[in-house]
Order: sequence, then C-alpha cells, then structure tokens
Amino acid sequence: MSTARLETFADGVFAIAATLLILNVDAQVVRDAPNLGERLVHIWPSYAAYAASFITIGIMWVNHHTIMSQVERADRRFLVANICLLLCIAFFPFTTRLVAEHVRGSGAEPAALAYGLCAVATALMFNATWFYAAIAKRLLRPDADPAIVSGITRAYIPGPWIYLGATLVAFASPVASIILFGVIALFYVVESSIFGGAAIEPA
Amino acid sequence: MSTARLETFADGVFAIAATLLILNVDAQVVRDAPNLGERLVHIWPSYAAYAASFITIGIMWVNHHTIMSQVERADRRFLVANICLLLCIAFFPFTTRLVAEHVRGSGAEPAALAYGLCAVATALMFNATWFYAAIAKRLLRPDADPAIVSGITRAYIPGPWIYLGATLVAFASPVASIILFGVIALFYVVESSIFGGAAIEPA
Amino acid sequence: MSTARLETFADGVFAIAATLLILNVDAQVVRDAPNLGERLVHIWPSYAAYAASFITIGIMWVNHHTIMSQVERADRRFLVANICLLLCIAFFPFTTRLVAEHVRGSGAEPAALAYGLCAVATALMFNATWFYAAIAKRLLRPDADPAIVSGITRAYIPGPWIYLGATLVAFASPVASIILFGVIALFYVVESSIFGGAAIEPA
Amino acid sequence: MSTARLETFADGVFAIAATLLILNVDAQVVRDAPNLGERLVHIWPSYAAYAASFITIGIMWVNHHTIMSQVERADRRFLVANICLLLCIAFFPFTTRLVAEHVRGSGAEPAALAYGLCAVATALMFNATWFYAAIAKRLLRPDADPAIVSGITRAYIPGPWIYLGATLVAFASPVASIILFGVIALFYVVESSIFGGAAIEPA
Repeated sequence: MSTARLETFADGVFAIAATLLILNVDAQVVRDAPNLGERLVHIWPSYAAYAASFITIGIMWVNHHTIMSQVERADRRFLVANICLLLCIAFFPFTTRLVAEHVRGSGAEPAALAYGLCAVATALMFNATWFYAAIAKRLLRPDADPAIVSGITRAYIPGPWIYLGATLVAFASPVASIILFGVIALFYVVESSIFGGAAIEPA
Repeated sequence: MSTARLETFADGVFAIAATLLILNVDAQVVRDAPNLGERLVHIWPSYAAYAASFITIGIMWVNHHTIMSQVERADRRFLVANICLLLCIAFFPFTTRLVAEHVRGSGAEPAALAYGLCAVATALMFNATWFYAAIAKRLLRPDADPAIVSGITRAYIPGPWIYLGATLVAFASPVASIILFGVIALFYVVESSIFGGAAIEPA
Repeated sequence: MSTARLETFADGVFAIAATLLILNVDAQVVRDAPNLGERLVHIWPSYAAYAASFITIGIMWVNHHTIMSQVERADRRFLVANICLLLCIAFFPFTTRLVAEHVRGSGAEPAALAYGLCAVATALMFNATWFYAAIAKRLLRPDADPAIVSGITRAYIPGPWIYLGATLVAFASPVASIILFGVIALFYVVESSIFGGAAIEPA
Repeated sequence: MSTARLETFADGVFAIAATLLILNVDAQVVRDAPNLGERLVHIWPSYAAYAASFITIGIMWVNHHTIMSQVERADRRFLVANICLLLCIAFFPFTTRLVAEHVRGSGAEPAALAYGLCAVATALMFNATWFYAAIAKRLLRPDADPAIVSGITRAYIPGPWIYLGATLVAFASPVASIILFGVIALFYVVESSIFGGAAIEPA
C-alpha cells in the first residue's frame, strides 16, 4: 500500500481536530450572555488553550509529515498504529476544553492530568509508529536520509518523558503544569522563528 | 470517472466521522461540573466507546482503501452505493453516543440495538459496494490481484452475520452485546499486531 | 489556476456538510433520556431527513465532479461562483434539522419552505456555475465531450423549477412538500440502480 | 518539503471553518421553538453573518492558493507561520456567532471588536506568511511571475489597515462596523463578477 491515502486521512483528522477546538471557545459564551464584553475578557484562558492546542496539533502534523517523508510503504500494523495515533490526536479538543474551563477552579488538577495523559499517550504512539517503521528500516524508503532518520529518533525518545514530567507537576500545582504545556507549544514557535530557516527537522 | 475524487470524498467522511466522536465524550461533562475528577472517572464508558468506534471507523477506512485499490473506474451505481455506505459510516457517532450514555442504564438494550443495526447496515453496504464492483470484474482493474479479490470476498461475506449475531445478543444482555462490539475492534488491533506485518489484506 | 485545489476544497465542504447531518439526529435525543427505545422510534423523521439530505449532498457532489471533469481552468468569477455554491450546500444541515424537528408540528410549513428555498438556491448556483464555465466554452477543456456538456445543460435547466415546485407545494401541504423532497432523493437512487451502469451522466 | 501536503492541511482547515459556520445559525433556533416562521425571519442577521463569513473564508482560501502557486518549498518557519494563519481563520466561526447574536443588543460593540480583531490578526498573518516567503524570493519558485508577486504584495499591505479601520468604527457605531465587514465581503463578489474574468489576481 502506498502512503498517499494514509496522508489524506491523517491530514483530515489533524485539520478537523484543530478546527474543532474553536467549539470549546464557543461553549464558554452562552447565548444572550449579558455583559458580553466582560465575558469575552473573562474567558481569556479559552483563547490561550485554543492557541496552545492548535499549535500543538499543527506541530504534530508537521512531525507526522516528517515521518511519512521517510516511509515508503505501509503494512497493516503500521496502519493500525497510525489509527491509534490519530485517535489520541482527536482527543485533544476534549482535554483542551477541560483545561480552559477548569484552570481557575477546583477541577484544575484533574483537567491538567487529563490534558497531560493525552499528550503522553500521543507522544508514545508517535514513538510506536516511528520505531515500527524505522527499526531495521522495515518500511523506510531505500533512500531515506540517515541524518533525518536519526534526527527523528533522537527527537522522539524524550517526548513522552517531557510530557510526563509536565503532567506530574499537576500534583504539586495544576496551574504550573498547564503553563508548562503552553510554554512547550510557545517554545516551538519561538525556536522555529530563530532556527527554522534551515531544512526541516523534526521537533 | 476515475476513482481519485471518490477517495478524497470518502476519506473526508471517514476522517470527519472519526473525529466527531470526541463530541460524544465532550457532551458527558457539563460546564462547570462540580468534582471534575470523579466525573472524568465515572464516564469511562465514553472513552471505551470512543476508542472502539474510532478504531472501527479506521478499520473500515482501511477496508475501503483495499476495495478501491482493486477498482479501476466508477459508474453511477457504484457512486450511489458508496454514498449509501458513507451514510452508514457517518451514523456511527450517534449510535456510539447512545451506547456510551446508556450502557449503565435502562436504555442499554435500545442503545446496543441501534449500534448493532448501524454496524449491520454498514457491513451490508460494504458487501453491496464490493460485489457490485467485483462480480464479473465489472469495475475492477484488468490487473486486479486474484488473491486480494478473493480475499476481500471471503472476508466480507461473514461481516453482516457476525455483527447481526453481536446485535441479537442485546436481547439477552445489552452489556454483553456492547462488550462484543468492543472485542471485535480490539481483536483487529491485536490480530494486526501479531500478523499484520505481511502484505495488507482486508479484515 | 488549475482546478485541482478547487476540487479538494469543494470535496471537503461536501464531505463535512454531509457528515455534520448526524448532529441533527444527535440533538433529538437529550442526555439521560428516559425510555430511550420509544424515543429512538419516535424520532424516525430525523433518520429519513438525514438519509435524504445525505444522499442529496452526495448527488450534488457527483454533479460537481461531472462539471469539473469538463472544466479546464478557473478564473476568479468561477471561484466566487463555486464559493457561493458551496455556501448553499453547507446550509443544508440547518434546513434538514428544521424539517426533521418540525414536520409533525405547527412549524412544518416554514421548515419545508426553508428547506425548499435552500434547494432552489443551490440549483440556481449550480446553473450559474455551469453556464459561466460552459457558455462559449469559456473555461471548458478543448476536448470537452459535447454529449456530456449538452447533457449537463439539459439536466440542470429544470433543476430550480423542480425544486421550486416542490417548495410551493408547502403552502398547500408542508408534509407533501417534504415527502416530495424525499422522493426526489429516492428517485435518484432507484433510477441509478436501474440505469446507472452506463457511463456517468449528470442527474 | 514540498508544499502539497501543506495545501491539503490548509484546504481542510478552510473547508471545515467555513462549513462549521452553519452551527451558528443552528444555535439560533432552539429545539421545539414555538412560532418557527417568525423565528426564522427574526434571525436574519445570522444568515447575513453566515454568508459574509463564508465568503470571507472563501476569499482567504483563494488568496492562500495564490500565495502557494508562487511558493516552491516550505521551511519550518513557513510552516509555523501557516499554522498561525490557520489558527486565525479557524477562529472566525466564533466571532461570526458573536456578531450574529449580538448585533441587535447591548453586546454589539464587543462582538464587532472581536470580529474585527480576528480579521486584523488574520490579515497580519497573511502578510507575515507572504513576506517571509517572498522577501529575497526566499521560498519562491525560480519562475515565479513577477507581476503576480508584486500584485500580491500590493494587495496585502493595505489589508490589516482596512480591517483595523473597520474595527475602530465599532467604537462609534458597532452596527456600522459590522455592515462595513459585510460590504467588504460583498465588494469582492461584485468586483469579481465585473472584473474577475481575467487571470486570477489576489484581492
């Protein structure tokens, strides 16, 4: 099986998951809200959560593309791994809403944990997808670029641990944990702005 | 008519139907829910239903791809059959929500029946779509692989019966019926993990 | 401008509009509905409306594809015409919900009128899009098939009038009008099943 | 990185953001609304806002296509700029709903400001995306058409200022500001109808 249709399906899920995030902002403003101006200011965490998750999903889409650029063909295991990866990514709109709604209330800890566990699961599935394709060059193109291949490998291994660390912070301070997730997204944008003029590498 | 644009449209419906499933999980957590942690644990059937249906739709997407890899061209009947097939697949988010919400209540039986009937209808439409294209090689590529063609045929015929069996179990025990549908999805993942390293075959 | 990216965008809108239809069925079942079985039977007009609109959007997708198969290039007018056409198609989930909810109540007449006017507008935009491209072969491929071109022209001209007729019936009997729209969708499926084995023609 | 997959992802976000706009109209009609006819007439600003935003997103899709037609390759900065641009575009369904719901009430000013700021941010990101690619022809195709390149540049620079002007009008009259945004969308349609028969240029 060529990988073209897998990319179409994956691009669809990435694009829909990112675009559905706006429904979370939407849900914060009830119909006929009195004092709309105050309400729009009050829900600023929704905007921050929207931006952080949109960028996170966008980064993951770039990462997925980087993987696929080195993969030549798909077998059934690889397809199932991709489906499970997309299952995690499509979960983000839910955990994003939890964080946006509860960051200022008593539900901040479970919300941060839910967001973090979803991120950890996504990072694990990224690793599973990549290593299944890359070990012994099982599904890679014959001309796969060794520098890119080892670059992806180096970049992916710490992923789940970084997200797990940010998640565990929630037991001490949910808000700090949530801020960390925002910082990780922001870091990518800033880092890309400074160093991103070179050839594309996974991040 | 070439089949490229049919695949784009179908991929879109598969991707959207799968990604919309998260709205069902979302609907289980009302805004400003008190005791968010307990609530997030309590709604675990929503997560299971989300995962099972996401994987089921993913499998169907793989199956659809397998069909299309053997089909060369589309006539109007084939397009209408595909539209009716996609109509069934886009119905899954609704029946998934019914199951997730009602598996623990008095509505478990109608929810399981609705989910099962939708699955049966989908499997029937898969058969109709495939056999219309495959009988007398009507729409198949001249170089269609006979092994894959007979493999699809063998794999599809029992589909509606398996789903019908799991559906009828709901009259005895709705929960058993729902578990069966989860097991069918899980089975595919496990089976693919063990045997899925070979060339892709329909499942 | 080549037409490839226009088709991707259009396919996306068609696929999303069709898949969003399920949210209308979803909205008919409130959370924790008592007596789910009865409710699921009671809302059968939602299923019928879902199926009729899904098939209608599917037919329009086929029609759009037929147009694009004869079009070689797009200018800005043609793009704007397409955007306005897609604007009408994306309106269907709303009017479909109106019909499904109100067919049995005092709102049947406005619901049928809204559905009908949306269908008339869509048919008019289909004509505008097609004739802008086809008159004097402005945007058509040099090798456009004259039989298909005149077939599209013949098939599109009566479209707005047929839908307008079905809409006006709503003033006498909203239910009859709604049934007519369902019959038009069903007619296409039946007609395609009987005659659709030949080369694709617009319907 | 080739730009093909970026276009698929972007087309997905454009198509979904445009199609989700109908949910705003939908939310204006509560279930089992009494006197549906009156209600459907009363919510006419929803239709106008739907049409204006659908066309605005459609125009932006055309503009994005025009940019990509001149771009040969993407680096990481360009991808991040595109993700941030799409982030702004996916925000439109939210601000559109605010305007549609509040144009006749005390929330008209904050609604118009929110809509306007979203439009300004989108226009700024369009400029950032374009100038990053175009300055010193960094990412442009070697054969990029100088007339189109300078046409895009000329057309994009005033964009943020025009939208900022229309936004600031909201402090004097929110309704006038909202009408201005509608006029800008309408202007494009009319202008394209009159002059759009020539080769495609950015607008």
